[in-house]
Amino acid sequence: MPKALIFDVFGTCVDWRTSVAREVAAVLPQVDATAFAMAWRAEYDPAMARIRDGGRGYVPLDDLHRENLHRVAEAFGVTAPDDLSTAWERLDPWPDVVPGLRSMKADHIIAPCSNGSIALMTRLAKYGGMPWDCILGAELARDYKPKPAVYLACCTALRLDPGEVTMVAAHNGDLAAARETGLQTAFMPRVTEYGPEQTQDLGPTEDWDVIASDFKDLARKLHP
Amino acid sequence: MPKALIFDVFGTCVDWRTSVAREVAAVLPQVDATAFAMAWRAEYDPAMARIRDGGRGYVPLDDLHRENLHRVAEAFGVTAPDDLSTAWERLDPWPDVVPGLRSMKADHIIAPCSNGSIALMTRLAKYGGMPWDCILGAELARDYKPKPAVYLACCTALRLDPGEVTMVAAHNGDLAAARETGLQTAFMPRVTEYGPEQTQDLGPTEDWDVIASDFKDLARKLHP
Repeated sequence: MPKALIFDVFGTCVDWRTSVAREVAAVLPQVDATAFAMAWRAEYDPAMARIRDGGRGYVPLDDLHRENLHRVAEAFGVTAPDDLSTAWERLDPWPDVVPGLRSMKADHIIAPCSNGSIALMTRLAKYGGMPWDCILGAELARDYKPKPAVYLACCTALRLDPGEVTMVAAHNGDLAAARETGLQTAFMPRVTEYGPEQTQDLGPTEDWDVIASDFKDLARKLHP
Repeated sequence: MPKALIFDVFGTCVDWRTSVAREVAAVLPQVDATAFAMAWRAEYDPAMARIRDGGRGYVPLDDLHRENLHRVAEAFGVTAPDDLSTAWERLDPWPDVVPGLRSMKADHIIAPCSNGSIALMTRLAKYGGMPWDCILGAELARDYKPKPAVYLACCTALRLDPGEVTMVAAHNGDLAAARETGLQTAFMPRVTEYGPEQTQDLGPTEDWDVIASDFKDLARKLHP
């Protein structure tokens, strides 16, 4: 049994797509809000890639989100208010997440291992009621997943060996990197994270240590 | 009104003296457990001072506690089991702390700003039920209070200006350093932290921004 569970957040814990679209619709009624949200998210990985590759020093995701917002707004032919980037602090958890985390918290240390900053993860947890024991993730390593340094920084912060920690994600790529780094792995799918046309991560692509249907099922499977 | 409240922990939130004495008594029945706890705590500041002064690189408090344990055990003429140093993960909160923090959490981000590590603060919160929003403190700065870098690292991690954050402590020296760094300050006394003979920090020595009698009173005074 793992001593700590660390979680991917965007997609795995929270439904960023419909939540960001709701925030976009509220201030930019003239655009297709879901298309805008998807385009904004599409800028996420390229922005981090420059930092992972060493082409740019560490910049918290809050700032990347703001930079990306204005790039996407320009492509959509609109001007976005700067504080729309705080939309990423108001993302709804999937319905199984809070009850599942509450159960898992009774048996394990639970913490996010997200590319979001400490500030962003703290505000997101308060918004959605996610009962984390502490906030871990990219900011501790000043680098971005799937770089091994991020998973290792979470284990080091908890003073645990990687083998005592389980990474939980709805993304096979995140788990592959965590397994490569020595962590245990748990998968549960989010088949509408990218909407009804989603083609990726519909199921597990490797024999992850635990495979569950949702957070409540995961809590049952990880109960000692 | 501050946006976040950050808290000293040892003494302010938890009664380290009677809790450590209880843990010592359980494994070293031949020593005066309270005297042992006090002697162990007395090694705390000198051990951090070397790191603050640059004479030694950052070492988490967990390791300093273990080193200090063996030094104190030697002075008491006993051999201590290595894992007695985890006594610092099992310290009882003062009775007003958990209800007070629950109230304050509704209005503010709440986090420890302790010299304890992320791992230690996480386990201590789980042990005592302290409902932190995130774990901040010395480890983020890789230095020790009262160095300004520690208070500033907490503000930076929350993406807040120092003036938007209140440091809460039962120790005037901690608040003096926080005020010097630009934070707001709140004092409430713990007049038996060092036992019935305590002579220090029995009351506020400066005009701190908020002065309260305990955490419940503090929650009332900080309610927007």
